[in-house]
Amino acid sequence: MMVSKSSKKSNLKRAWDMIRETVHRGAELVALPEMFNCNYNIKYFREYAESTYGHGETLDMLSSAAEKFGIYLIGGSIPEIDPNGILYNTSFIFDENGKLIGKYRKIHLFDVNIKDKMNFRESDVLTPGSEVPVINTKWGKIGVAICYDIRFPELMRIMALKGAKIIFVPAAFNTTTGPEHWETLFKSRALDNQLYMVGISPARNAKSSYVIYGNSLIVNPWGKIINILDEKEGILVSELNLDYIEEVRNSLPVLKNMKKDIYIKNIMN
Amino acid sequence: MMVSKSSKKSNLKRAWDMIRETVHRGAELVALPEMFNCNYNIKYFREYAESTYGHGETLDMLSSAAEKFGIYLIGGSIPEIDPNGILYNTSFIFDENGKLIGKYRKIHLFDVNIKDKMNFRESDVLTPGSEVPVINTKWGKIGVAICYDIRFPELMRIMALKGAKIIFVPAAFNTTTGPEHWETLFKSRALDNQLYMVGISPARNAKSSYVIYGNSLIVNPWGKIINILDEKEGILVSELNLDYIEEVRNSLPVLKNMKKDIYIKNIMN
Repeated sequence: MMVSKSSKKSNLKRAWDMIRETVHRGAELVALPEMFNCNYNIKYFREYAESTYGHGETLDMLSSAAEKFGIYLIGGSIPEIDPNGILYNTSFIFDENGKLIGKYRKIHLFDVNIKDKMNFRESDVLTPGSEVPVINTKWGKIGVAICYDIRFPELMRIMALKGAKIIFVPAAFNTTTGPEHWETLFKSRALDNQLYMVGISPARNAKSSYVIYGNSLIVNPWGKIINILDEKEGILVSELNLDYIEEVRNSLPVLKNMKKDIYIKNIMN
Repeated sequence: MMVSKSSKKSNLKRAWDMIRETVHRGAELVALPEMFNCNYNIKYFREYAESTYGHGETLDMLSSAAEKFGIYLIGGSIPEIDPNGILYNTSFIFDENGKLIGKYRKIHLFDVNIKDKMNFRESDVLTPGSEVPVINTKWGKIGVAICYDIRFPELMRIMALKGAKIIFVPAAFNTTTGPEHWETLFKSRALDNQLYMVGISPARNAKSSYVIYGNSLIVNPWGKIINILDEKEGILVSELNLDYIEEVRNSLPVLKNMKKDIYIKNIMN
């Protein structure tokens, strides 16, 4: 978790330093927050965007860090620009050799208008993704969703059914919705799908146009928060017991007890 | 919320008295807990079962109470037996004239085995339902789900998409899962679907073979608990502002932002 200021270079330097510190504390997989290379403000997205087709200092930094430190790296998210100039909110994922092994484009764009409190429309500049990948790691499959995506239980369910054991959610909730919804959403997705949910938020900057909630956290498959930060910049390091997933699924066989035929029949109507 | 003892007659008498008391406190719709006419123990289900085809003192009582007090009545749930002798865990719903206007048969049966803590298999005696009705009332549509059903976000989503404004969940969580999951589940279903969730539990009887959690509650469309009981017998009366549903849906347009095509494409694979 890190404060994103408006200089891309200093954001990348800060990310590198924090990745290094996280590795020094024993991490073998590191995840960064949403839009970590820029301010979370739609007017900066095009300027800070990068493409897998061109040169990108953010993508280069992520690949180098993954390789140098020998870690899996969930590159939070950054604005991605495709060859047609279309922008996405995208998470790039690298393996221990610095190889890009997957990416996820945010499917549910954040368009809200809470009376007298906030107004934010990602869809003014971004295009939604349409793919739900899960990514192979040496520990098994993982999923990535981004921020507002977590409000849609269908997305996390699909990842769980595709075999994800951990879902990483780079996310920048705000001080209006965060205190009331953040923990409930992560706990319920973990509980419903009996897997680990990890929320990675930028730190709070009270002077920003969009005041971020913070509170990066890890929830286990029983729906229990096992580690959480506050609103300040920080690093969260936890060891995840992946065997616990099977233990929970054996005691409360929720995924086995799903009635997919009934859901599909009704949702098609 | 009421303690279910093992005599059907005394359970029905107690239910009647509590319905009357609830109406005296101003209620126009009353909901009872799961398996309120018997003990929540699979060995009693057949003995206490009733059918809409025969005479049933529970169904007669519910119809009479709805008519006499001029209320909508969500009859918690009772064991239902069909003409072929098949048992369901069913909620019967009556209008202000005492007319049966709908029923819901529990779709997800509770089969759990938590090491050294609990072992319970509804499917040994019950058959699951397969229909997801929503029921018209003078306030709009409502849904009913039963207990373990609440662990499946798909079910509440379907009801929301069919227009339910309130989902009533007669439920008998236990003291193992209740303290850790009860509130999170109700809050997240309310929040995900931006509607009212009502959980109606029997009271706790520490001497029972299955120790019930209690804590009947009402959660609003913003995911906030607006009223909650403790583990003891009690009555929860609240006025629900149904206009608030639209207010929340306008500020955070979650249902409008769903990507049904993506969910269907992925869930079919």
